[in-house]
Amino acid sequence: MKMLKELLSVLLVLVTLSSAMGKPEKTTPKKEKRIPQTLSRGWGDQLIWAQTYEEALFWSRSKNKPLMVIFHLEDCPHSQSLKKAFAEDKDIQKLADEEFVILNLVYETTDKHLSPDGQYVPRILFVDPSMTVRADITGRYANRLYAYEPNDMKLLLSNMQRAMKFLKTEL
Amino acid sequence: MKMLKELLSVLLVLVTLSSAMGKPEKTTPKKEKRIPQTLSRGWGDQLIWAQTYEEALFWSRSKNKPLMVIFHLEDCPHSQSLKKAFAEDKDIQKLADEEFVILNLVYETTDKHLSPDGQYVPRILFVDPSMTVRADITGRYANRLYAYEPNDMKLLLSNMQRAMKFLKTEL
Repeated sequence: MKMLKELLSVLLVLVTLSSAMGKPEKTTPKKEKRIPQTLSRGWGDQLIWAQTYEEALFWSRSKNKPLMVIFHLEDCPHSQSLKKAFAEDKDIQKLADEEFVILNLVYETTDKHLSPDGQYVPRILFVDPSMTVRADITGRYANRLYAYEPNDMKLLLSNMQRAMKFLKTEL
Repeated sequence: MKMLKELLSVLLVLVTLSSAMGKPEKTTPKKEKRIPQTLSRGWGDQLIWAQTYEEALFWSRSKNKPLMVIFHLEDCPHSQSLKKAFAEDKDIQKLADEEFVILNLVYETTDKHLSPDGQYVPRILFVDPSMTVRADITGRYANRLYAYEPNDMKLLLSNMQRAMKFLKTEL
C-alpha cells in the first residue's frame, strides 16, 4: 500500500492521462484483429529490450553492461520524431545492441533517481552496472537535461560511449 | 541504491539465473533476423497487456478493473503448459480482455505482497483496484497457493469472477 503515494504522484498522473491511458479503449473495436504489442515499440525491432526496470537492472549487473532507459509517449510528437531518428541510426542501433541493456518505458518507475530534473518525455537516462544513475550524462538543453531531439544523434552516440566508461568509485 | 538489496534477493537470482538470462546470448547469432518480442509472450496475443507493475496498477485504478498478474518463465515446462491452456481458453481470454488489467512477468517485482508464499512459477495473483493484493484468491495446491495447472482453467475462471467482486473495505 505504500506504493500508492509514490505511484500516483501528480506528475505521473499528468503525464499518463494525456497519453497512453486512452489507448486501450480506443483500440478495442470489438472483434477486430489486433496487432500484438512489441517491447520495442518501434525504437528498434531488432534489438532485445528489457520489459521492466527491475529486469533491466538485473541484466545490467549480470552482463556488466550499462543500461539505457528511454522514457517516451506514444502520442507525443517529440517522442515520435526522436524514435524515428533513433531507430534509423545504424551506429546507435549497433552500439545499443552490442554494448547496452535497453529499456523503453511509457510509465514512470518509482525510482526518483531516474527523474533528476523532472518527469518529462522524451528523456534518456543511463545507469551504470553499479546501479548508479549517470545524472552527469546530459543532452544539450539546460531546461531539460536528459531530452534529445532528432538532430542530436551524434551527441547521443557520444553519450553512449561515455556511459560505456564505467564509474569505478563503487566497484 | 536502496533497490539493490531488494532486487538481488537470493530468490530472484535463483529464479532468473535458471531461465531468461541465457536467452539474449543464445538469440544473438549476429545478423540473423530476430522476431520482435511481444508483451503477450503467447498468453493471448489479442489481449492488451500492461508492460510494468506500475503501469498495471495505474490502469487498474483508473479503469476500476481488477489486475491479474501472471508470473512465469519461458523455459519452465509448467509455465508453458499453463500458458497454452490459458491462451486457448476462450472464456478466460474474453473475461481477461473485457474485465481485467493483465500483466505477465518473467522477473519479480519489488512488491513483496505479490509473493505471499514465495517466488515460484507459474503463479497468478489478483490485485483489487484499491491496490490490495487478493491473497485470499488461491488455486488448489496447499504448498503453492497461487499455482495453477492446465486442468485448473475452470477454477481460474471462477477465481477471476471472484476478483471482479471488489473489496469494499478500503473504498
